[in-house]
Amino acid sequence: MGLAGTEFYPPAERRLRLGIVGGGRGALVGQWHWSGARLSNRWDLVAGALSSDPETARSSGRDWMLAEDRIYDDWREMARAEAARPDGIEAVAICTPNWSHRMIAEAFMDVGIDIICDKPMTLSREDCLALEQRQRETGVVFAVTHPYPYHPMARQAQEMIRAGAIGTVRQAQVEYAQDWATGPDDPNSKSLAWRRDPARIGRASATGDIGSHAFQMLEFVTGQTVTHLRADFHVCGAPKAMEDTAFLNLRLANGAPAAMWITQAAPGNYCALRFRIYGDKGGLQWDQEFPETLRYTPLNAPEQIIVRGHGAGVVPAAERMVLLPRGHGESLSDAWGSLYREIAIAVAARRKGEAVPEGLLNLPDIHTGSRGVRFINSAADSHEAGGSWVPLS
Amino acid sequence: MGLAGTEFYPPAERRLRLGIVGGGRGALVGQWHWSGARLSNRWDLVAGALSSDPETARSSGRDWMLAEDRIYDDWREMARAEAARPDGIEAVAICTPNWSHRMIAEAFMDVGIDIICDKPMTLSREDCLALEQRQRETGVVFAVTHPYPYHPMARQAQEMIRAGAIGTVRQAQVEYAQDWATGPDDPNSKSLAWRRDPARIGRASATGDIGSHAFQMLEFVTGQTVTHLRADFHVCGAPKAMEDTAFLNLRLANGAPAAMWITQAAPGNYCALRFRIYGDKGGLQWDQEFPETLRYTPLNAPEQIIVRGHGAGVVPAAERMVLLPRGHGESLSDAWGSLYREIAIAVAARRKGEAVPEGLLNLPDIHTGSRGVRFINSAADSHEAGGSWVPLS
Amino acid sequence: MGLAGTEFYPPAERRLRLGIVGGGRGALVGQWHWSGARLSNRWDLVAGALSSDPETARSSGRDWMLAEDRIYDDWREMARAEAARPDGIEAVAICTPNWSHRMIAEAFMDVGIDIICDKPMTLSREDCLALEQRQRETGVVFAVTHPYPYHPMARQAQEMIRAGAIGTVRQAQVEYAQDWATGPDDPNSKSLAWRRDPARIGRASATGDIGSHAFQMLEFVTGQTVTHLRADFHVCGAPKAMEDTAFLNLRLANGAPAAMWITQAAPGNYCALRFRIYGDKGGLQWDQEFPETLRYTPLNAPEQIIVRGHGAGVVPAAERMVLLPRGHGESLSDAWGSLYREIAIAVAARRKGEAVPEGLLNLPDIHTGSRGVRFINSAADSHEAGGSWVPLS
Amino acid sequence: MGLAGTEFYPPAERRLRLGIVGGGRGALVGQWHWSGARLSNRWDLVAGALSSDPETARSSGRDWMLAEDRIYDDWREMARAEAARPDGIEAVAICTPNWSHRMIAEAFMDVGIDIICDKPMTLSREDCLALEQRQRETGVVFAVTHPYPYHPMARQAQEMIRAGAIGTVRQAQVEYAQDWATGPDDPNSKSLAWRRDPARIGRASATGDIGSHAFQMLEFVTGQTVTHLRADFHVCGAPKAMEDTAFLNLRLANGAPAAMWITQAAPGNYCALRFRIYGDKGGLQWDQEFPETLRYTPLNAPEQIIVRGHGAGVVPAAERMVLLPRGHGESLSDAWGSLYREIAIAVAARRKGEAVPEGLLNLPDIHTGSRGVRFINSAADSHEAGGSWVPLS
Repeated sequence: MGLAGTEFYPPAERRLRLGIVGGGRGALVGQWHWSGARLSNRWDLVAGALSSDPETARSSGRDWMLAEDRIYDDWREMARAEAARPDGIEAVAICTPNWSHRMIAEAFMDVGIDIICDKPMTLSREDCLALEQRQRETGVVFAVTHPYPYHPMARQAQEMIRAGAIGTVRQAQVEYAQDWATGPDDPNSKSLAWRRDPARIGRASATGDIGSHAFQMLEFVTGQTVTHLRADFHVCGAPKAMEDTAFLNLRLANGAPAAMWITQAAPGNYCALRFRIYGDKGGLQWDQEFPETLRYTPLNAPEQIIVRGHGAGVVPAAERMVLLPRGHGESLSDAWGSLYREIAIAVAARRKGEAVPEGLLNLPDIHTGSRGVRFINSAADSHEAGGSWVPLS
Repeated sequence: MGLAGTEFYPPAERRLRLGIVGGGRGALVGQWHWSGARLSNRWDLVAGALSSDPETARSSGRDWMLAEDRIYDDWREMARAEAARPDGIEAVAICTPNWSHRMIAEAFMDVGIDIICDKPMTLSREDCLALEQRQRETGVVFAVTHPYPYHPMARQAQEMIRAGAIGTVRQAQVEYAQDWATGPDDPNSKSLAWRRDPARIGRASATGDIGSHAFQMLEFVTGQTVTHLRADFHVCGAPKAMEDTAFLNLRLANGAPAAMWITQAAPGNYCALRFRIYGDKGGLQWDQEFPETLRYTPLNAPEQIIVRGHGAGVVPAAERMVLLPRGHGESLSDAWGSLYREIAIAVAARRKGEAVPEGLLNLPDIHTGSRGVRFINSAADSHEAGGSWVPLS
Repeated sequence: MGLAGTEFYPPAERRLRLGIVGGGRGALVGQWHWSGARLSNRWDLVAGALSSDPETARSSGRDWMLAEDRIYDDWREMARAEAARPDGIEAVAICTPNWSHRMIAEAFMDVGIDIICDKPMTLSREDCLALEQRQRETGVVFAVTHPYPYHPMARQAQEMIRAGAIGTVRQAQVEYAQDWATGPDDPNSKSLAWRRDPARIGRASATGDIGSHAFQMLEFVTGQTVTHLRADFHVCGAPKAMEDTAFLNLRLANGAPAAMWITQAAPGNYCALRFRIYGDKGGLQWDQEFPETLRYTPLNAPEQIIVRGHGAGVVPAAERMVLLPRGHGESLSDAWGSLYREIAIAVAARRKGEAVPEGLLNLPDIHTGSRGVRFINSAADSHEAGGSWVPLS
Repeated sequence: MGLAGTEFYPPAERRLRLGIVGGGRGALVGQWHWSGARLSNRWDLVAGALSSDPETARSSGRDWMLAEDRIYDDWREMARAEAARPDGIEAVAICTPNWSHRMIAEAFMDVGIDIICDKPMTLSREDCLALEQRQRETGVVFAVTHPYPYHPMARQAQEMIRAGAIGTVRQAQVEYAQDWATGPDDPNSKSLAWRRDPARIGRASATGDIGSHAFQMLEFVTGQTVTHLRADFHVCGAPKAMEDTAFLNLRLANGAPAAMWITQAAPGNYCALRFRIYGDKGGLQWDQEFPETLRYTPLNAPEQIIVRGHGAGVVPAAERMVLLPRGHGESLSDAWGSLYREIAIAVAARRKGEAVPEGLLNLPDIHTGSRGVRFINSAADSHEAGGSWVPLS
């Protein structure tokens, strides 16, 4: 082996040029994008409009060692200037507050730059439709950053369910629990300010921020769409303007029930995206805080622990994301690396007018993004209707 | 130390005489009662009507080495005969199918014999009221067999919450998951036959059988009563006449939300009674499959693992139930032993006309039993009303 | 199912009569014997010389509700009197300090009473030979109380190795770690006083006390005898007259190396008897603090977790010891119950002049006890020789 | 936060230029260096002599997108050419088989290029002395790649011991267990060919390969040097020319005993570098396969689980290496990133003639490398002397 994945992935001929909007100093998510891009070895970060505050934009650009003339104060200017350069960016990562995703994505799509957009993709269903329309018109690659399915053992779960390892999916428990919102918000946090403002984050806070990941994982792993849901929003941590906790019930397309728990106010949970999926022949259980192992419980047989690595029960779809030998732990940085690798393959293919190799690519795309926006808005619909069942629409 | 608990519990002057109705060959629960009584060293099992089938009653009585003249075919005869003997039983354990609890309990109460009754105590709310009335009239001890709070670390959780270790309870996740009903029922099982028949088990199957334990644990540990709930019943395992799975939402008296998951069709869950309780200052987490440890997660401080044993953070109310040194594992047999020890103290006190020593006794009693029956019937009410919120009444 | 194990074990016709020497107030081990005997439902404890201190003997006898005339001050008197009674004890449990085991066992063997002896069986190899000689002459049952192999999952490991699940045993790591001797000894503890006195405990303290269990488990599980060892004794806790820690290397009969760690001064270890056995086809790992699960790691295949219960990979030899359904935890009390059940079967068979049913009985016997004494003395030989290799003799 | 660690580490003014010798296709270790360098964002990999086979060197260089004129067939040529370029490399990572480290390091030191050398640093003690001499003469930075101490929770353990959290270190158990050598070696593996040849790997195989990490971790965490050891080498997996397993005993400078187990033939162990350190006031336990948590067991107090992240008991020396919030897992890639970040700080400081900021740097250096070589050779001395105690010299 040389670079991980060279057995499975088409080799890169060169690194692609990446720009970023948002994600500067004070914003955690920028670092994810940056380290994923770096680890994939398929991108060079060359331009950025890293903050709406010019001074932060500049200091953040220097943190990342961008050339001075490619540190922008304004993303509109960045779209224009980069599109004009012969060595302009080929894709842009959009890491800004939710409300601004649509307009930024449109600006870059319009100049033919591929999109890597944070979730939730937009605030409203209408914004989704508009973006989907524009993507069809421009034909750009449009990825939405759900990194968790890039943990090899999450992929393993998806493939095992697809192959019938647990029989028919009959019920599911999914949760994403954190604890950072248990105490009072830091009044100086810009990042929290917009997260408590419906005009900027949308109709839900925790449910959009992390619930969208739990929802995407549920549909991803089970291979079932959610058709109906009901939701109750709560504030379980210190008083705040929007929910920090949601209890949901969901119905899958095949009729199976599921429960979902979303909270940012449960002390001792850090980044606890967990699923437990049960069929008539077995169960599968995974926890993002311990991402290297998948617990498989076939009915009437010994439990199995499947450990990320080559062989020993790991299926090819998961194995192709395995970078390091079993036990040399991989984690969220590596998952972001795998996500950015697959995005690079898609972007490179489009630029050469080629198709992405079959079976190699399963990107969370604009459709995935749209499902997430619909989930959040349907949850808000249900909550506002007293927690009654609503279709996911 | 000599016998465990001699430091805390009043010594026994003699072993009490115990009878049992039901619980013979083919019924698991009888063994719990028997081993709890034996382990407590405060009871001799001397009489039984162990089955409605005379032959099984007799062979079961011989299994347990009862004297021939105290193996009864009929519990009515047993109540009469034992009441008449100078060495008659002082308490009776009722281990029969749910529908028969009321009439059996009444028969023994009427002859002054103390009651140890399986849960759910009765089918209907009306039966509860009748039993409560009769208990008040007769003044007997009436215990309901919830053994799980007799795991020392469950008691520890209760005491820590009472003392403010997690602040105000703000939300809870409780579940009791098993997997034995995933596949088809054994058509020859008498134990399953009545569990699928509303006339004998009541309006719910899994929800009554194990949900009542989860409910009792939730109220026990949080110190909060449940005021409202909603429930959806499902069949997630092989087809059967009653639910094997329920998804519930609950509201505690202080307004905190809780979710409850009850299933007997989730492969890889065996006897998984688990709670996670979160307050504004910390969380507590426990799993009956690993009963020796309690995970305590104070906000902004290292996690703690509190291990059953003497000292090292174990509070007196839990420590008094500790039989074996830390690491010399205790388990469900020991919990039944502790339950039977406390019942013996109550029965002995009543027979001597004395009060039970303050602070030593916290028995699940007829009120606990009644709460459980109301929980089951309210869940059935909600389910039948399409999963809408109902008061727990 | 009625009583656990009725499918596998021959039924008891009556309970046997048990006496006990030592084990009264202040001695933990008495409680193990008592609860094991009670849980097995095959014994009544009817007589005891529970302490060398007459007052403690009497109060302890009352704790256990012995008849006044069967509470003895002196074990010699007890042997004489019980042998003379028509309802005299049929077996005696010897729970006294190590140095006294031989003389007490001889006195009871000489009057035809079966022996249940704590480990280490004697101080010296010579004492072993003498006891073995007397046992052959008297033909009594002679059990040595190693309860840990009566955890079903330890038995499962033995059977899996025997059946080739890990191939040829190639190396092993065994340890028994506790922490109670980290701080200074309680100067008022009688139990500690003799444990620090070579005249009463023998040539080793921790190595004899818990090391003998680790050694027995190693030979039991691997099916290999230890042929050579080397040992270094250390005091790692507070200063004391004898070792609280030993580091050993061992060689198995097939040439495989093993390491053993024995300590009572490692904070955070409570009763941590653990083994990890590796062959050329897989590994097995077990921890007494979590006795319900056995980790099986076949080479180049997913890890398996085998959970105590019926079916799902549990072999018959382990299944026959399963009392409670999977997940309804069993623990050390239950293991003692299973040990006492098998002893009862052996004692009952001898008294009826019958053979113990083939395959049902695998008692730790006088030979097991002798191996343990040889282990301790060989370890002391090695330590005194500067940690050089010595044969286990 | 912008880039992780900007609060603690001096900012980089530019990325440094890195070359690499060895580590091309077929060699895992190259990937570690590369991803560590990329993740740190302080290095650009610009030149390499990636294999002794010219074709592999070229294809590997293209994998990593090196400029054609900086893909070298020969490291001597690379040292000469890079030293001559104005934009030549500032440091070189040496990832070749052990026997060649010395000559390569000398060649680059002699032209003033800083060294990042794999462990074991050299085969013999004499080679160490020679390298140490040359390093003193040239004054270059000389780092040895021990990444495991860059797991924040390993650092946490070091700091807690230093601060007295467990009192005086009294004993230790350290192990590094893998299973890849259980079955027969792949006869086509170049990587295995040299690992079975003493002329190229030195006097020990597994003991040098992974034992050197366990040894370094033991001295790192305890703050104690090892003064004496004894070692037995074994082949526990398929037959091979050198040991795949070693059992060692060690003595720390303060007299405390330690045991070490090194194996590459224990199925179910993948990259299991684990330590358990016990003092008179508590214990600390860590496992590289679950690197995010440190178990702390203060004597007579609840166990603590310290989880990587900000606050909640994490000390500053560990916190400065924390890149991601608690629960957003970090792993071995991130540890290599932190190692490469600190190397960059040292290299940048030397090039500016500045001192490395106090307290920020604790690099495994040429002295660390030398300790490792001495450990391996002393272990071989002991093994060849029949496992007797030898000084670590």
